[in-house]
Amino acid sequence: MGKESNKQKLPKTAVATENTLAAAARRNFLKKGVLLAAAGSSGVATAETLKVEPWSKQLGRSVVSHPYGMPSPFESNVVRRNVPWLTADTHSSISFTPLHELKGIITPNGLVFERYHAGVPDIDPTAHRLLIHGDVERELVLDMDAITAFPSVTVIRFLECPANGGMEWRGAQMEAVQFTHGMLSCCEWTGVPLKVILQEAGIRPSGKWILAEGADGAAMTRSIPLEKALDDALLVYAQNGERLRPEQGYPLRLFNPGWEGNTSVKWLRRLKIGDQPWHHREETSKYTDLMADGNARRFTWVMEANSVILSPCPEKPWTGQRRPLYEIEGIAWSGRGRIRHVDISDDGGNNWRRAQLKGLHLPKCLTRFSLLYEWDGAPKLLQSRVTDETGYVQPTLAQLRQVRGVESIYHKNSIHTWGLSADGKVRNVQIS
Amino acid sequence: MGKESNKQKLPKTAVATENTLAAAARRNFLKKGVLLAAAGSSGVATAETLKVEPWSKQLGRSVVSHPYGMPSPFESNVVRRNVPWLTADTHSSISFTPLHELKGIITPNGLVFERYHAGVPDIDPTAHRLLIHGDVERELVLDMDAITAFPSVTVIRFLECPANGGMEWRGAQMEAVQFTHGMLSCCEWTGVPLKVILQEAGIRPSGKWILAEGADGAAMTRSIPLEKALDDALLVYAQNGERLRPEQGYPLRLFNPGWEGNTSVKWLRRLKIGDQPWHHREETSKYTDLMADGNARRFTWVMEANSVILSPCPEKPWTGQRRPLYEIEGIAWSGRGRIRHVDISDDGGNNWRRAQLKGLHLPKCLTRFSLLYEWDGAPKLLQSRVTDETGYVQPTLAQLRQVRGVESIYHKNSIHTWGLSADGKVRNVQIS
Repeated sequence: MGKESNKQKLPKTAVATENTLAAAARRNFLKKGVLLAAAGSSGVATAETLKVEPWSKQLGRSVVSHPYGMPSPFESNVVRRNVPWLTADTHSSISFTPLHELKGIITPNGLVFERYHAGVPDIDPTAHRLLIHGDVERELVLDMDAITAFPSVTVIRFLECPANGGMEWRGAQMEAVQFTHGMLSCCEWTGVPLKVILQEAGIRPSGKWILAEGADGAAMTRSIPLEKALDDALLVYAQNGERLRPEQGYPLRLFNPGWEGNTSVKWLRRLKIGDQPWHHREETSKYTDLMADGNARRFTWVMEANSVILSPCPEKPWTGQRRPLYEIEGIAWSGRGRIRHVDISDDGGNNWRRAQLKGLHLPKCLTRFSLLYEWDGAPKLLQSRVTDETGYVQPTLAQLRQVRGVESIYHKNSIHTWGLSADGKVRNVQIS
Repeated sequence: MGKESNKQKLPKTAVATENTLAAAARRNFLKKGVLLAAAGSSGVATAETLKVEPWSKQLGRSVVSHPYGMPSPFESNVVRRNVPWLTADTHSSISFTPLHELKGIITPNGLVFERYHAGVPDIDPTAHRLLIHGDVERELVLDMDAITAFPSVTVIRFLECPANGGMEWRGAQMEAVQFTHGMLSCCEWTGVPLKVILQEAGIRPSGKWILAEGADGAAMTRSIPLEKALDDALLVYAQNGERLRPEQGYPLRLFNPGWEGNTSVKWLRRLKIGDQPWHHREETSKYTDLMADGNARRFTWVMEANSVILSPCPEKPWTGQRRPLYEIEGIAWSGRGRIRHVDISDDGGNNWRRAQLKGLHLPKCLTRFSLLYEWDGAPKLLQSRVTDETGYVQPTLAQLRQVRGVESIYHKNSIHTWGLSADGKVRNVQIS
């Protein structure tokens, strides 16, 4: 990660500093001057009439009340949610991150989306072992003490299920960004480079693929090419500082930055090295893309560039008092690297304006974009379109369907459209 | 934050990339070759004898079990802790972050240290107001909707109570890094630059200071110079993505990056602009430093550069099976900016070796350092010494006492010494 700060590959114009954004906002807010109600104006208290609330007149909770803290009870609506009809059972199912409620790029651990196939096991870390076998010089069985004794590395990277947006392939369906894009989170991950562990075992010349297996009841498996293992794959045990959460693979997870979340096998118990992929369920029946000609795309690991507007969105409409200036804000991400730029349209893709990137813009990591926007109160079709550092441009839904048909479930990364009504409400619409 | 990636002020030699660290580790681990037990060696299972644990044979918890997730029950010891004798009451007290259990730079919200003076209020965000008055052109009363409508900025910054280490001024006392250094956390904070809000109010020429007041029962106040308000002070409402935690000021907090945590007034309800400081309790009786000559230092806002080794430490000893190579790891931080470098001594400060910086190294932010270390098994006096980008060098305790005497409570940032015994245990020692 040190190299992230050592050089800057992106053109400077694509990057907003805090200061330029603040300055732009200030100029505009001041010019308009009506965003804020001055004290004493209609319905607004003054220093003299401002109410002293009860919490200013009493003792609160003490320092021993919450050894591990929790959100305010007033934030009880900010939770992961599932879609009851989406899966046959809640033990092989999905919960979605409330992206619209979040700021910055870190997803707090309690809100990271979930996807698993036999429920969440509560694994005793002292009993957990990682077996490394197959085409290796030395078969290894490692406990967590051995794994955490290796020098650690830490990166901030997104994690996305390739089925994210899958419900939208054939038409707009979900009236909530939590469900259209919420199989997506971003955390600080700490672990050991997989290549370090593999070199301890010694890969034989015949070893070209790795089978990763989980210790949950599903014993989920994926075949991983050795190239990824020797590139940036990690064996992670910490997430946003603390140990992995149970639903994220506690105590040990394979993490393949930028790749299908499904390949980042949780509760990792086994790595078998072989000369070819294993063609198990999760890379044949599932996590493949049925094309119009009846063939299926397979091993489509990389999560290609995607973006979505979070303000406004169905759950965060602009229905309050009209303001002269709004901040259109959202997130962009690419499994291939950094975000180069993001463009915004308010007319369904005919005209585009360059957004500003805010804060850190790390590779394979959520990146915030922002556009200060004077909404004239007319209905709009709002879209964001990301271009990543490889030059890949987020496609329209029509372009995606032209190549992939409509039978796919996975890898729907097309430009998303929000219909903003005159009353400020936002609907999920699709433009063919 | 964009500018953090635009240029790199530090010499490249001070920065370790993931790759160089991994490569160094690999070389050394391979050379020594005894860190890991090969399968089948004494007491180690093989692929054939490896136990299949019960969690691999049953369903776990379902996707609806934890709308807001929690850590594994096996991590129940990773909590904030208080020191019962330290304060007269638990409503005006402190809890400490378990730094030794954390990785990376993000402190998860549930473990961010606490310090407050009348307990934690549960404030209704819809009722909360921020009053801005005094030497302003327009008195303002803002609700949370008005504040969050401004374009937001996001930064990762540490937060430290200036009393951190205060129990150690006169001698080593606490046998735990959680208590010697745990009034320290680091989060991603999102909010509005204070300068933007102040320009909405319009500061009169007489306005030079700001009184910030909290809405808790203590109505805590601090005087903040206008220069800081116009520099990098923020009104924050989100922390690691989600809304502030109650104990961190929900729904609104002043945040002064790099300054005494006490100045980052929580539950912020009022900003009064005036021509001089107010000399309230928290800047006279408290948060001042009594010197040997009877005078007190005042308005000592900046948290100067500090560092501590977390592996090993009293709670993370090296008592397990002897290894040929250990990673000495720790954290450094400076309220003045970035970390330039960190040096490690194993002989109480006579000889020093340059550590590597790992991961992101942002200004006013925790930065991880690391040194691969061949411990010969003899007792050692381990120290870390940070130099920040201004050239400030972390002082010895003797140097600090020479200038500040022994009556101080705050701003003890001297080099910390861990005594490593031959049995791998670590004690808190002080070298005069």
